Amino acid sequence: MQLSARNQLKGKIVSVDKGAVMANIKIEVTEPNTITAVITKESAEKLGLTEGDDVAAIIKSTEVIIGK
Amino acid sequence: MQLSARNQLKGKIVSVDKGAVMANIKIEVTEPNTITAVITKESAEKLGLTEGDDVAAIIKSTEVIIGK
Amino acid sequence: MQLSARNQLKGKIVSVDKGAVMANIKIEVTEPNTITAVITKESAEKLGLTEGDDVAAIIKSTEVIIGK
Amino acid sequence: MQLSARNQLKGKIVSVDKGAVMANIKIEVTEPNTITAVITKESAEKLGLTEGDDVAAIIKSTEVIIGK
Amino acid sequence: MQLSARNQLKGKIVSVDKGAVMANIKIEVTEPNTITAVITKESAEKLGLTEGDDVAAIIKSTEVIIGK
Amino acid sequence: MQLSARNQLKGKIVSVDKGAVMANIKIEVTEPNTITAVITKESAEKLGLTEGDDVAAIIKSTEVIIGK
Repeated sequence: MQLSARNQLKGKIVSVDKGAVMANIKIEVTEPNTITAVITKESAEKLGLTEGDDVAAIIKSTEVIIGK
Repeated sequence: MQLSARNQLKGKIVSVDKGAVMANIKIEVTEPNTITAVITKESAEKLGLTEGDDVAAIIKSTEVIIGK
Repeated sequence: MQLSARNQLKGKIVSVDKGAVMANIKIEVTEPNTITAVITKESAEKLGLTEGDDVAAIIKSTEVIIGK
Repeated sequence: MQLSARNQLKGKIVSVDKGAVMANIKIEVTEPNTITAVITKESAEKLGLTEGDDVAAIIKSTEVIIGK
Repeated sequence: MQLSARNQLKGKIVSVDKGAVMANIKIEVTEPNTITAVITKESAEKLGLTEGDDVAAIIKSTEVIIGK
Repeated sequence: MQLSARNQLKGKIVSVDKGAVMANIKIEVTEPNTITAVITKESAEKLGLTEGDDVAAIIKSTEVIIGK
């Protein structure tokens, strides 16, 4: 099955921490990646985003799905 | 300002594609990373996630925030 | 109150599992549904999505809001 | 590849509407489903959620990933 | 219908900007609010979050649902 | 660091409730705000959203990032 999600970062699990309902999983990424971000045009312009800019891709941990 | 979001991947913008309301930004990640994923304990157990497993961290592009 | 969220699947709760902060709720959907997905045009084209394709709509459980 | 995302609703694409950056895809679900929702314990208690309750699972269309 | 979503900020629409697939809506909030955020315990501890701290609640615009 | 996330509501923490993996944080917003919501054009039209409408901006607590 192919997924529409653009970001699929391959890695190895380094820790698994389970609570009653949720679990916190840490994955060490082992391959270089390109991240796709879709933001408002308004934000792209307010930040003046252009090729070559140094930026950070910020992702809340609850948004990450694990594929195995 | 420090952020609660666990995943902050540093990189360089390689393309900016603007539409009427949204923009698609691609970022080449330039530093190794550890990704934190919070999933249900149920999923962690159904997939049998344990240290050392090869997995993929899957993230939809609309979930990514850019910091510059 | 009408909601902008396109997907509102009617059903019946079959289980409630509470932890300290979060709860896992299972809902048996009782009516047929059409799911709306908004993805990048890039993904739609890479997957070659067209009418009649057999697909799966994949949704992380943390993204679901319950209305009662 | 197995996914940690609990909700995987099988169906058939009924329409594809592409804009400059995003695309709106409608999927007719063809199999009965159980939806898993993770919400705060606080919400589960304020709404008094219990087995047998009639509810709606509400999902914004930008949160849906397509698998094909 | 009551919603499990903890944050429901009342306000008035000040602008509507439509593209081909998406629309950008701005809402002026007219009532004081309390925001509920669910983050990892790990983040709460790394940021040392405690009562009385001055913080910002950061929300990507694609995560907001409108009720009317 | 500037963020692409349009919504950054300033406030003061009023409670911190920690579980095993997740924590529930309440923030009293102390400044007036404008909320940006990106929804489908389809929803904007079905709800007939126009300037001056009284609406609610609905946000699930798992979507909120805290900056300190």
